[in-house]
Amino acid sequence: MSVEARVEELGLQLVSPFTPPAARVNNRIVQRAAGSDMLYISGRGPGRADGEGFTHLGCLGDGLTVQEGYDAAAAVALEHMGILRGELGTLDHVRRWIKVTGFVRATSDFTRHPEVLNGFSDLIVSVFGEEVGRHARSAIGVASLPFGIPVEVEAIVQVATVPF
Amino acid sequence: MSVEARVEELGLQLVSPFTPPAARVNNRIVQRAAGSDMLYISGRGPGRADGEGFTHLGCLGDGLTVQEGYDAAAAVALEHMGILRGELGTLDHVRRWIKVTGFVRATSDFTRHPEVLNGFSDLIVSVFGEEVGRHARSAIGVASLPFGIPVEVEAIVQVATVPF
Amino acid sequence: MSVEARVEELGLQLVSPFTPPAARVNNRIVQRAAGSDMLYISGRGPGRADGEGFTHLGCLGDGLTVQEGYDAAAAVALEHMGILRGELGTLDHVRRWIKVTGFVRATSDFTRHPEVLNGFSDLIVSVFGEEVGRHARSAIGVASLPFGIPVEVEAIVQVATVPF
Repeated sequence: MSVEARVEELGLQLVSPFTPPAARVNNRIVQRAAGSDMLYISGRGPGRADGEGFTHLGCLGDGLTVQEGYDAAAAVALEHMGILRGELGTLDHVRRWIKVTGFVRATSDFTRHPEVLNGFSDLIVSVFGEEVGRHARSAIGVASLPFGIPVEVEAIVQVATVPF
Repeated sequence: MSVEARVEELGLQLVSPFTPPAARVNNRIVQRAAGSDMLYISGRGPGRADGEGFTHLGCLGDGLTVQEGYDAAAAVALEHMGILRGELGTLDHVRRWIKVTGFVRATSDFTRHPEVLNGFSDLIVSVFGEEVGRHARSAIGVASLPFGIPVEVEAIVQVATVPF
Repeated sequence: MSVEARVEELGLQLVSPFTPPAARVNNRIVQRAAGSDMLYISGRGPGRADGEGFTHLGCLGDGLTVQEGYDAAAAVALEHMGILRGELGTLDHVRRWIKVTGFVRATSDFTRHPEVLNGFSDLIVSVFGEEVGRHARSAIGVASLPFGIPVEVEAIVQVATVPF
């Protein structure tokens, strides 16, 4: 089954990247080197499907539960997939997820960052399968994130096309 | 116009990397893989042009304004450019800025990290232009940074030469 | 002298990756792109040689000394080497250490992150020598890390083999 068919089967609604006006400047949502098949996705938060801000705001260990953090991380995955489809035309051109770095806004005594980021990783593997979807990952706790989002994830993805 | 001519036109003074003695050891300021055109710049702070420490110290949301953070991020960009010129001989050998990760030392309720890091990105795009200068970026808030610097930025840059 | 002979001469006991059950899911400890010689090691903590948890837990500036942080970072290096040997069969297939990113759990006024991460870098250079072992590096302070570990390090390593 193709990845795009799997997205449809799971009933997923991919998300267009949401960036508040203050951050819309001289950076790119996605970038790659000339002649390279490695694609860098900028750090992204849990944008809403309707484009009206973020699905979650707040801090793990101070208001947000691990389950809410998991859901926020899954929302980031939907946005990463929306970015990839916008860049590549189809998710079937993703060859391999390489590296994911996830930053979780948390109190200083919080310890369950990997469980939060599983919301991202589980959804990616559900869609792409283990061979393509599994990735190296770092889970980091931070004091603050842009706009008050609770999770920010960046990624490096190998793609099947080298168009420029 | 060449990038070096643009540096001159803008009257920019590139900065030599400043590293306090405690950090001068078994790491490199810049590194690349054998046979690769991708260059990794270590996390750097806002070194002063006169080599006497840092332009800014402190914390966003607790003493430092967003404008001061922006200026500190611009100082880091001057150091990155100084590092690149030192490595490549000329900034005209930069082919494309790929990925920038910026860590902003901030209080837990700070939300304006992208505006701070625009100090870095805006200067890079002023010098290199949009095609070469724009980059994927992550903006992260952290509790502490080495030496008390308010901004630390690392980068991946594609270059035109593969000399070793 | 080979790298493996150097490990033996130094009497080092490499460490198998330790991951608490909550984090054992859809991520990989190490990953690389198809046809690439660049290997991404996930963020790792200071696993114990006997597989019974971590060598250190806690926070720099609040209980842990810089020396203890240095020792924890060295323990992470032993685990990275254990991961590399497991992946490559022998450490002699490491071609060059490229980039190391180290996150230090610390209080907001802590400033000595580079000294902590020298525990990682010094050991890598002791084993691999300066040419192969020295690397670009970022040292970052964070409020929290998974499981309460005080240091988490991820790395990009160039290897001599491209087997898949």
